[in-house]
Amino acid sequence: MSPLHDLAARFIDTLDRRDWDAWSALLHDDVVYEIPQTRERIIGRPRYLQFNQEYPGAWHLTPRTIIADDERAVVWFTWTVDNDNADAMAFFEVADELITNVTDFWPEPYDPPPGREHLVERY
Amino acid sequence: MSPLHDLAARFIDTLDRRDWDAWSALLHDDVVYEIPQTRERIIGRPRYLQFNQEYPGAWHLTPRTIIADDERAVVWFTWTVDNDNADAMAFFEVADELITNVTDFWPEPYDPPPGREHLVERY
Repeated sequence: MSPLHDLAARFIDTLDRRDWDAWSALLHDDVVYEIPQTRERIIGRPRYLQFNQEYPGAWHLTPRTIIADDERAVVWFTWTVDNDNADAMAFFEVADELITNVTDFWPEPYDPPPGREHLVERY
Repeated sequence: MSPLHDLAARFIDTLDRRDWDAWSALLHDDVVYEIPQTRERIIGRPRYLQFNQEYPGAWHLTPRTIIADDERAVVWFTWTVDNDNADAMAFFEVADELITNVTDFWPEPYDPPPGREHLVERY
């Protein structure tokens, strides 16, 4: 397991457990967090920590797939809140063993467009 | 560049150029394509090829970030159709240098929920 694979796994695990000290220790002071779907950006570890501490709901995160190379990693995870759940992804950039950038995606379910029923099955 | 990094890059490039022979050659006969957001699944290279050949619009794909290890890869890419564009991701599983599984995500823009304006800037 590469160092960045382990770093990404610890990010999700410590966030899920609200182990804020351990989670914060993975982040660069000037970490940049972005959500492209809302065009929101948070700059700096203190604000990013507060964002997660204040995020409402009894949410939990379960990693499904982690891929990492020497500079970047991605975690495809499942989030659950009460009886709701869906896939999400976090992309990480890393320097000096600390996370400098996190970009999250939160894809929502949608109805398949018509015209491809002859090729597709539903699951 | 790892072999799977190169494989993922060629997948996007040949798909963008509609080079169907080169694109098909990257896929296992029994490739499984899934879209978790619609719970759609396509089984087998011929159907997956037809799905892409029939997909409407003058769409184009531009890779943004590729991450790969020895078994998996992800491409975070931008798709564009006319004046519309957004991020998407494709996760790949590979065996014997051929793609066996592709899972796509197509996250849509959404409005940020209220209550975090004190931490966030928009971009």
